Amino acid sequence: MNVDDDPILPVHRSIRSYRPEPVGEALLERLLATAQHAPTDATAQMATLIRVQDPELRRRVAALAGEQEHVCEAAEFFVVCADIHRLHTILTASGLVPGQFPGVGLLFATVDASLVAQRLVDAAEAAGLGTCCIGGILDGVEDLIELLALPPGVVPLFGLCLGWPAEQPPVRPRLALESMVHTDRYGNYSEPRIAEDVAAMAAITRSGDWLRVLSSYFASGGVMEEREWPWRRALARQGFATWRE
Amino acid sequence: MNVDDDPILPVHRSIRSYRPEPVGEALLERLLATAQHAPTDATAQMATLIRVQDPELRRRVAALAGEQEHVCEAAEFFVVCADIHRLHTILTASGLVPGQFPGVGLLFATVDASLVAQRLVDAAEAAGLGTCCIGGILDGVEDLIELLALPPGVVPLFGLCLGWPAEQPPVRPRLALESMVHTDRYGNYSEPRIAEDVAAMAAITRSGDWLRVLSSYFASGGVMEEREWPWRRALARQGFATWRE
Repeated sequence: MNVDDDPILPVHRSIRSYRPEPVGEALLERLLATAQHAPTDATAQMATLIRVQDPELRRRVAALAGEQEHVCEAAEFFVVCADIHRLHTILTASGLVPGQFPGVGLLFATVDASLVAQRLVDAAEAAGLGTCCIGGILDGVEDLIELLALPPGVVPLFGLCLGWPAEQPPVRPRLALESMVHTDRYGNYSEPRIAEDVAAMAAITRSGDWLRVLSSYFASGGVMEEREWPWRRALARQGFATWRE
Repeated sequence: MNVDDDPILPVHRSIRSYRPEPVGEALLERLLATAQHAPTDATAQMATLIRVQDPELRRRVAALAGEQEHVCEAAEFFVVCADIHRLHTILTASGLVPGQFPGVGLLFATVDASLVAQRLVDAAEAAGLGTCCIGGILDGVEDLIELLALPPGVVPLFGLCLGWPAEQPPVRPRLALESMVHTDRYGNYSEPRIAEDVAAMAAITRSGDWLRVLSSYFASGGVMEEREWPWRRALARQGFATWRE
């Protein structure tokens, strides 16, 4: 089916060109309050959003993410962070001893923060705004931790642009629904299904070659391998190491 | 402000009591197609939902999560998984060599899967359905991987109940917005703010004692520490270890 026909939520498109008008503090506060009511594991709310307003700071964050212009252009830009620092502060201030669970802490905080961020995206789009998630901030994760003065227990996950859209790009394709949703047990991914998915995904990139995108990010020698050690160093520095140094 | 006054999205409440009527395949497909259009890093869609339909399997999954009745009662129950297996399969089938990035892979796949899940929650609530995220599946993560036959590169993150609500619980409180959203740099969390947040959060639990909940989960000897080693073993087994065995 075409998700355009009768959308339950506004159709999502990543917006990379924004009008200069501000979102407005009243609307922004409503959006953030809505986002904050995302589900949270065990009531702990292990998410923090750093709202980057200072233009010079914004420029430096954009540079870390490979000079993506929309990071500077969007009326609002947030760095979405997994945060167990605030929880530790509450426990300690209350005379309790925080447990040691770096792996599970990173998991639950990453989920908490991502749920808040997606609810912010859905609320923003319902209000007519555009959004764009920026995974590229991971390219400079160690510098970003410095720039935003993130304490131990906090790591940046991705950036989020938000503002009034100046473009209406086509809706991007996705894998066949059957590739993402399996029944009862993890299903086989057969050669014909793979070929179908690769063909369907071609339109996601201007080159029409999805495998070239996947290769540049995920194949041996690609972007994700370059991000691996800086990310591990960032985890260790922020107290999320699950390995011995 | 009260998020009830003029909601941009339906106000979120976790629903733990469901009517028996099915969601209906047509509506469910629309919801899943909407969810699938969540943002995804580098077009890779590293998310899989296991739809648990078999009643006996559902009962066993519910038992792993501490016999939460709503897991069995909800018309639909999904296990939300981080998945780099499908991506690896696509790369390999296309003659490409997948890179080695277990830490970054887990991060991006966890974010991808959480964004899809929250978009499913937001779409479901917009259609009048209720949802409940189940973090407790982590209590039996190793058994769950067996039950769902998850291949290497796939880990379960949390469960998601979805169905027609048979209750309308009060909206749960959240921290002060200023505690979650910081400007430009990570902000201080002062004693008076902590006391305010702890007081505001009291209503989230029937006991009226939020610190008791936090203590049972997050303090030394709590639930999160119990989940740490099974989670690390699950990560190692599924190929996400960032440490030496």
